[in-house]
Amino acid sequence: MSHPASWQAPAIPPLAHDLTTALQARIDAKTKPPGSLGRLEDLALRLGLMQGTTRPVLTAPAVLVFAGDHGFARDGVSPFPPEVTPQMVANFLAGGAGINVFARLAGLPVKVIDAGVAVDLPPHPDLIDLKVRHGTRNALQETALTPDEVALCLDRGGQVVADLAARGCNAILPGEMGIGNSSAAALITSALLDIPLADCVGIGAGHDPAGHARKREILARVQARHPGVRDPLEALAAFGGCEIAMMAGAMLAAASRRMLVLVDGIIATSAALVAARLAPAMLDYAVFAHVSGDGPHRLAVEALGGRPLLDLGLRLGEGTGAALAWPLVRAAAGFLEEMATFEAAGVSERTGVAPQP
Amino acid sequence: MSHPASWQAPAIPPLAHDLTTALQARIDAKTKPPGSLGRLEDLALRLGLMQGTTRPVLTAPAVLVFAGDHGFARDGVSPFPPEVTPQMVANFLAGGAGINVFARLAGLPVKVIDAGVAVDLPPHPDLIDLKVRHGTRNALQETALTPDEVALCLDRGGQVVADLAARGCNAILPGEMGIGNSSAAALITSALLDIPLADCVGIGAGHDPAGHARKREILARVQARHPGVRDPLEALAAFGGCEIAMMAGAMLAAASRRMLVLVDGIIATSAALVAARLAPAMLDYAVFAHVSGDGPHRLAVEALGGRPLLDLGLRLGEGTGAALAWPLVRAAAGFLEEMATFEAAGVSERTGVAPQP
Repeated sequence: MSHPASWQAPAIPPLAHDLTTALQARIDAKTKPPGSLGRLEDLALRLGLMQGTTRPVLTAPAVLVFAGDHGFARDGVSPFPPEVTPQMVANFLAGGAGINVFARLAGLPVKVIDAGVAVDLPPHPDLIDLKVRHGTRNALQETALTPDEVALCLDRGGQVVADLAARGCNAILPGEMGIGNSSAAALITSALLDIPLADCVGIGAGHDPAGHARKREILARVQARHPGVRDPLEALAAFGGCEIAMMAGAMLAAASRRMLVLVDGIIATSAALVAARLAPAMLDYAVFAHVSGDGPHRLAVEALGGRPLLDLGLRLGEGTGAALAWPLVRAAAGFLEEMATFEAAGVSERTGVAPQP
Repeated sequence: MSHPASWQAPAIPPLAHDLTTALQARIDAKTKPPGSLGRLEDLALRLGLMQGTTRPVLTAPAVLVFAGDHGFARDGVSPFPPEVTPQMVANFLAGGAGINVFARLAGLPVKVIDAGVAVDLPPHPDLIDLKVRHGTRNALQETALTPDEVALCLDRGGQVVADLAARGCNAILPGEMGIGNSSAAALITSALLDIPLADCVGIGAGHDPAGHARKREILARVQARHPGVRDPLEALAAFGGCEIAMMAGAMLAAASRRMLVLVDGIIATSAALVAARLAPAMLDYAVFAHVSGDGPHRLAVEALGGRPLLDLGLRLGEGTGAALAWPLVRAAAGFLEEMATFEAAGVSERTGVAPQP
């Protein structure tokens, strides 16, 4: 595998802007006042530009929950103990977590990827074992991942997507699980956006004010241990984690294959930020599912130029926001494919000029 | 039937506030950080309070598209000719309209109610003929509906809901179709909120600035023809239409049966406003699906204390915003019913106090 400083993101094809006029005409021929489906019309257009067709379809979409542990998770950054990571993986595989419920309702399969859980996990048909290491090193003391480990994570994220694409998937909903990963996300976001760390540290899994203050204090020490990080690969190495790096690799691979990436919450957005710094055109294939109830998320989404579909105060992660937004994406593709045209339905188009009173 | 001035709204049962603690405990036992599902947690709680149970379920939900014509529709208030109302009814019944696509994707049936379409409609299994008259009278010249017609609309809306309830439905998604009905909605909203008409007149089905100005001018003349209207029944009589009055009756009947009312756009909201003025407790059973891209809608939703689930710039009507928000409502009920608890899943709860670093 390659050294991360030289890790090459895959080439990302441009959007098919030459189809804009034809797509817009197709949208406007539907039996509705022009523009009356608002953001869904923008989304339908985007899907066509991504797929390079005036008749985009969404095929075999999948939720991918990347799981990993964090060396600093025992140091007070989370109100939950790190044992919760494998416990929640078991919950995902048993179908009992939030992401399972929302994915089931939306008709989406859930695959769990062991990117770097600290303990060995028993095999399961829905668990993909791509563990790069048993949790990251403690970033309070050393770099969380070696350059080679970062590259391995990115490559393996790409492999997950390649396997899905081979089975006809053209849309992914990446989610994650990892006690401590909102801390890694905050450190990455602060480094890559070059904004104060304090603006990037949210309440994560639900700190009280004292816990939040402690989290900020610990993360300031982590940041001080790794000064001057501004490069995306360096940020992944310094702060981790395996699941964030693997998500970034998956996002890049998806965009390289013209697949839709539905971006979830604060941690998935940090992965999107890494991916966008490695290949800005990735954002052409990214749709932001929601803006989280955890304050720093809005800032990161806006920095990436994202317009979230939902704003419901969610802050669970796992891909839940993406799964909840999925019906809107499907509706955008659906109206473009299935709605009758004025001509076919025999409905009069507007007169343009209203009749004189 | 009764005179509208004496039309009695049905009694609406109070929410089961005694269940709040038990419902909140059930929500907090789920494997997620407390509060991390944001607005979906509020919604799950509301559903329990509405249904009077800690285990609310949504059964046999239905989209109800109320259709009616407006006497002033030929006077320049809409860029579409009034023939479009029956044309769109045919489109609904053929399954080709926006509401059909979104309802199909959400697993919802669509029933169309002829509340007052100007022409006779051929029978169809999904068309419920409750026509009160062939379009309203022209409110530029006279009252749109007689007091008896208003009462008949309200009663028949209630009958639609009674029939659905008898078949196990506990949630309705009222939508509408009627060229000119955003004008009636604007007049009703201005009258009942006692705010300037100009603030209530949106672009409706998509006026250009000249058309919008003409719409405002015509509606000012309608308003001047019916000065001092502040009563909800008087407003329905003065301005119409049959579909708005019937929706209001359906909403009241639904609330009286503890059924959820998912409120759509600017016209459905004007019906909710009428219903709320007739029986304020109706709002306990109302969830606002979205805030429209047509400016005045936000004002009306806020006046009713609504917190819309979606903000996507939609302005199609038909119930499309409600159908698009339905998966979120279903997700709220779904996580409460299906998500594993910390105890059942063997997941550690948060320590409350983070470990000392």
